[in-house]
Amino acid sequence: MKMRKYEIKLRPIGFVRKNSQKDEISKIVLFDEFKEGLEGLKDFSHAFIIFWMHKISEGQRKILKVHPRGKPELPLTGVFATRSPSRPNPIGLTLVRILKVEGKILTVEGLDAFDMTPVLDIKPFGRRSFNEEVRVPEWWKRLKNMA
Amino acid sequence: MKMRKYEIKLRPIGFVRKNSQKDEISKIVLFDEFKEGLEGLKDFSHAFIIFWMHKISEGQRKILKVHPRGKPELPLTGVFATRSPSRPNPIGLTLVRILKVEGKILTVEGLDAFDMTPVLDIKPFGRRSFNEEVRVPEWWKRLKNMA
Repeated sequence: MKMRKYEIKLRPIGFVRKNSQKDEISKIVLFDEFKEGLEGLKDFSHAFIIFWMHKISEGQRKILKVHPRGKPELPLTGVFATRSPSRPNPIGLTLVRILKVEGKILTVEGLDAFDMTPVLDIKPFGRRSFNEEVRVPEWWKRLKNMA
Repeated sequence: MKMRKYEIKLRPIGFVRKNSQKDEISKIVLFDEFKEGLEGLKDFSHAFIIFWMHKISEGQRKILKVHPRGKPELPLTGVFATRSPSRPNPIGLTLVRILKVEGKILTVEGLDAFDMTPVLDIKPFGRRSFNEEVRVPEWWKRLKNMA
């Protein structure tokens, strides 16, 4: 299949800045040219941050099965059925709370990304009524109880 | 800032196949080498699909403000505060219902992507108790009533 050669090139819109890894608060500093794109975001309480997990190596991108969170007691599972950072395209996705939008700087709570992580996109979150029943595997529930 | 030159290269893990654009059901056909990564996904009812909106032109990627859904009566808003496909990195994000996982083919409901859209990542969804209050702008509510 020729499609296999298909290559996509991205540039970050900005970077995560964080004082310490344990800090729940992060700043997302956009490049000046994207500042305008933030207009109106302060009217939302939450947003999805899509970022590039830049610390993931080429080797980690080849991993297709993991024990969730590295716990051997949880079943070996395909990476697309886990939130593991080891995956072919290490794209991170986190729902954060928006604390402040000031010029080109967005301050958020709950972003599980390292300092200097490239940010790819920001999308507003508006809860839609989600009345569908959600089913998860047994290990997912066990993981919640471990945390 | 040197970071501006930072370039990220991605290859799709597979493609969306769809009979007609109006079809609520899509198939995601992975390349053979990623098949293993789907193992265990059938135990989830829902997943996020992260895809590349390949029909967005270079010109559209320069747009930083839009009227949501092209409706002139809604305020001109920064693209990062909208779900507009016109954005610097046209990455699509949709929560879908998983109907079937069979070999390298994932059948889902609710994916708003065109036939032959490159898929970048798949992440399982498990509803966490979301008790936080969600705030959205006035235009977002108006849009819901228009739909």
